[in-house]
Amino acid sequence: MNNENALFNMRHTASHVMSYAIKMLRPDVKMGVGPATEMGFYQDYDFGQTPLSVDDFKAIEKKMRWIVNKDFALQKREISVAEAKELFAGDPFKMALIEGIEKKGEACTLYDFVDGEGNARYTDLCAGPHVASTGQIGTFKLMKVAGAYWRGDENEPMLTRVYGGTFADADGLAAHLHMLEEAAKRDHRKLGKELDLYTTSDLIGSGLPLFTPRGTVVRDAIQDEIMKLQYAHGYRRVAIPHICKKDLYETSGHWQKYKDDLFHVHGKGDTEFVMKPMNCPHHTQIYASQMRSYRDLPIRYCEVTACYRDEQPGELLGLSRVRALTQDDGHVFCRMGQIKDEAAKIIDIARAFHTKTGMWAEGNFEVYLSVRDPEKPEKYLGDSANWDIAEQLLEEVAAEAGLKVKREEGEAAFYGPKLDFQFADAIGRKWQLTTIQLDFVMPDRFDLTYINEAGEKERPVMIHRAIAGSLERFMAVLIEHYAGAFPAWMAPVQAVLLPVGQQHDAFTDDLQKQLMTAGVRAEIDVPTETLGKRIRASQKAKVPFSIIIGDTETGGGPLTVRRYGAQKDEQMTVEELISALA
Amino acid sequence: MNNENALFNMRHTASHVMSYAIKMLRPDVKMGVGPATEMGFYQDYDFGQTPLSVDDFKAIEKKMRWIVNKDFALQKREISVAEAKELFAGDPFKMALIEGIEKKGEACTLYDFVDGEGNARYTDLCAGPHVASTGQIGTFKLMKVAGAYWRGDENEPMLTRVYGGTFADADGLAAHLHMLEEAAKRDHRKLGKELDLYTTSDLIGSGLPLFTPRGTVVRDAIQDEIMKLQYAHGYRRVAIPHICKKDLYETSGHWQKYKDDLFHVHGKGDTEFVMKPMNCPHHTQIYASQMRSYRDLPIRYCEVTACYRDEQPGELLGLSRVRALTQDDGHVFCRMGQIKDEAAKIIDIARAFHTKTGMWAEGNFEVYLSVRDPEKPEKYLGDSANWDIAEQLLEEVAAEAGLKVKREEGEAAFYGPKLDFQFADAIGRKWQLTTIQLDFVMPDRFDLTYINEAGEKERPVMIHRAIAGSLERFMAVLIEHYAGAFPAWMAPVQAVLLPVGQQHDAFTDDLQKQLMTAGVRAEIDVPTETLGKRIRASQKAKVPFSIIIGDTETGGGPLTVRRYGAQKDEQMTVEELISALA
Repeated sequence: MNNENALFNMRHTASHVMSYAIKMLRPDVKMGVGPATEMGFYQDYDFGQTPLSVDDFKAIEKKMRWIVNKDFALQKREISVAEAKELFAGDPFKMALIEGIEKKGEACTLYDFVDGEGNARYTDLCAGPHVASTGQIGTFKLMKVAGAYWRGDENEPMLTRVYGGTFADADGLAAHLHMLEEAAKRDHRKLGKELDLYTTSDLIGSGLPLFTPRGTVVRDAIQDEIMKLQYAHGYRRVAIPHICKKDLYETSGHWQKYKDDLFHVHGKGDTEFVMKPMNCPHHTQIYASQMRSYRDLPIRYCEVTACYRDEQPGELLGLSRVRALTQDDGHVFCRMGQIKDEAAKIIDIARAFHTKTGMWAEGNFEVYLSVRDPEKPEKYLGDSANWDIAEQLLEEVAAEAGLKVKREEGEAAFYGPKLDFQFADAIGRKWQLTTIQLDFVMPDRFDLTYINEAGEKERPVMIHRAIAGSLERFMAVLIEHYAGAFPAWMAPVQAVLLPVGQQHDAFTDDLQKQLMTAGVRAEIDVPTETLGKRIRASQKAKVPFSIIIGDTETGGGPLTVRRYGAQKDEQMTVEELISALA
Repeated sequence: MNNENALFNMRHTASHVMSYAIKMLRPDVKMGVGPATEMGFYQDYDFGQTPLSVDDFKAIEKKMRWIVNKDFALQKREISVAEAKELFAGDPFKMALIEGIEKKGEACTLYDFVDGEGNARYTDLCAGPHVASTGQIGTFKLMKVAGAYWRGDENEPMLTRVYGGTFADADGLAAHLHMLEEAAKRDHRKLGKELDLYTTSDLIGSGLPLFTPRGTVVRDAIQDEIMKLQYAHGYRRVAIPHICKKDLYETSGHWQKYKDDLFHVHGKGDTEFVMKPMNCPHHTQIYASQMRSYRDLPIRYCEVTACYRDEQPGELLGLSRVRALTQDDGHVFCRMGQIKDEAAKIIDIARAFHTKTGMWAEGNFEVYLSVRDPEKPEKYLGDSANWDIAEQLLEEVAAEAGLKVKREEGEAAFYGPKLDFQFADAIGRKWQLTTIQLDFVMPDRFDLTYINEAGEKERPVMIHRAIAGSLERFMAVLIEHYAGAFPAWMAPVQAVLLPVGQQHDAFTDDLQKQLMTAGVRAEIDVPTETLGKRIRASQKAKVPFSIIIGDTETGGGPLTVRRYGAQKDEQMTVEELISALA
């Protein structure tokens, strides 16, 4: 994402405006960090013994409007670390930030709110950027208050995080408030419970959802569809264990960077195991288990398997943020000259899959090409000529697939360039789902080779790819996207059969068998309640097709079908019903 | 299994005979434990600085024959702990065993080899039973030498384990030696490598196999077949995380018993997690996530998921004994009155599945009904009347399924009776695969309920069931059973297409597409080698069908097909080939 746009600056400045307002009302407040966010901003505060609540928002917003009306100019200035320490001596959080700046040897910069007479009315430690004056921050609204640990660390003090929204104009704010209202209705945690898709247990722990039979149908439908598409493109399933010795991640280089975020596993012996936070190092070991020839390449492994991340309990959220996340993961080992074909295959798979979910539509998704920062070539590992070629190839393959790509300089990982696909859901929220990442580094670390035409060893390139990403997160996205009304191919129950009376039971049983044999997930709701009540129940359960079976139907007529959300019934034969459900 | 049969006693006595022989040759030897095994016996020794090797077997066997010819009588006598300590003062392992006996308050018993004059020629600490005299131990042979930790604990000294075989007669020994030879040829570790089914990596750790694409096909075929059969019987898939708080196992009661054999997981926080050693407690939490009515029962969950056991590195063996084992697991929650129907369904599934693998055949499997020990009713939890009913029901359901059942008193788990199915592989080795276990205890521990017809809460019964057991172990069994030549439905590659020359490539490509579309795993072996060499390669890879494509075939004739192991070719149409592969 481009952080340097106008809205970002407005949001960033708005957070300073809020802090100034709060300082006026609560002079003793201490301040943590406060960045701009996608829809506005937040700022952490320590209010001491007198907590802040949403009841205080009115007073704060009033002060904020006064600051906006004053249209203070924002002016940046650099000061020494010693000066900064003097200025913020009373605020332990600021002092900690200043010490961080000092350690990195960076400059301390301040932003002042300057009035017409040139006086600084409010000053904060900040690297910027901001809008030119407080009058330019657009329409804003304080949103909510939450607890947040200083530095996200549960051993540190709990601060109060105040969230605000900032928009170009009042229409933007109204649209956002409407979106929030819709999002609350569609909340996957609420629908997950109502539709019996997953559950959690205090005995098992937070961030560790269990999928019920209904939720597992949805999960399997997603997984099977991706696997089917991948199989047709030459991907083959593999199966790896979920734990490994730390040696694997020492070799990959992840241990040094991420060891504090891993789950560590110990048995009776001395061996240090970890739960895998990713699958690529494991897949390299399958590649490395045989001598490979150029004739064997590309080799494509895929798998749906869980990875584990020790997320802070406070950051866990339903299916969106979990401790055990299931990835539709896959890795291609190929030659430089095969990158383009392989990327094209992955785009084909993503196109077919997200077309089926309804998300791949003109204007509904964006593609980002992350390339090197041309000014910091030292940040990137691997041969520079290969980087040039690879960046070029990814750009070409996207163009040939008819995709408009946003080029993002400096956003590439240190190991290679990538293409990311970001999709909008039904209420406009954006989700990064598909990714295609080239990797020049891991094949080196694991000394992966193949024998080329001349009988010499060569290094393959590795491509990391995901179509849906984490299945849990993707399910959360889809539950909210569809508001729980899944399309028939992934619905837990595709058709509910409603015999009008007991005299229709035998016909209904036969029809269920016929549908089940054709692979349709059909259930019967026996006539212990009125038909009207049962139709309402099937609509509440968001079943795609409700089939009403009375005398006409048992007498040989077509089936009477009510689609989810439809006001009117349709007539269709069993064959038509089956083909509508495929 | 019945340990009190004659062969067991012969084997047990043979181990004493070996120890006496070794004592004669190596008077300073110290002795660990030495039980009878299924084919003979073993005994652990500490040989100090002079290790024993198979080269010593000849001399030991000579002494053993002398002992057998002397036909010493075996006489049991009881002594006090103090006397035992005096007698075995020089042997630290014996002393540890005696201290164990002392702690348990049990009696110390010795077995003497007594000669014709009534003199004890050799004495060992032993609870028996034995044959009457050393002349009765049948045909024996020393087999191998291996290292083994004292008490299986890697922190204890490494001892030398000497294995021997004992048989009723020379034919029994010959058959066993032939079986061993066959077993070595079929060893799944050897075939697993040759057929590229799985691999291991030192970076990942022992007991943690990775399945290659070819091995994953076999694994998925097993899993899909079981799941398909279960689905038709009303089982529904669920998906659970692989870790949980220790609280879950404290509630189930497993923590207290097994905590030292678990993998313990720690992140940044204080929460104590474990890797799941079983799935039943997780499944109770899905059951408990909703209020259940008698109308909802039976509820049947199934899943293919990994469990983790901290096995000693020395006990790990290929796919047979691993640290992460994948179970085809499932649990039924039902009423007492539904047990019989549910057990019948599970027998149906097992029959269909093991018929497909070729193992379910008259005389090739045995069924054991494990019931209470009538003399120790206090060992079993749950209502005694329910136990009576359940044991009766399992007996009835087996009889109605036409199964002859061996009743094993005292072999039931403390929580309920069970039916176990033991199958013989192609070389006669026996494997316990399918199990059906009733459980009256876990529903209690997790306070599981349903509402009965009267609106009152009742406890469901739980049935634990597995069809193949651990997929890894089952794959090891099948690889050795088939000697790597899998039946077509589970073969990694079902058909290899062999164009005679390049002029047949286009036809071959089309045929592959046609086969792949029909779901056949077909590969092409292009004509870079002679046809003869390529046919030999496909036979070596044990591909069920090799299809030779020359002028006749491209000219519209039927396909020329060589089945694995066949001497002659067959002619068949594409349709016939596809139906042969289903």
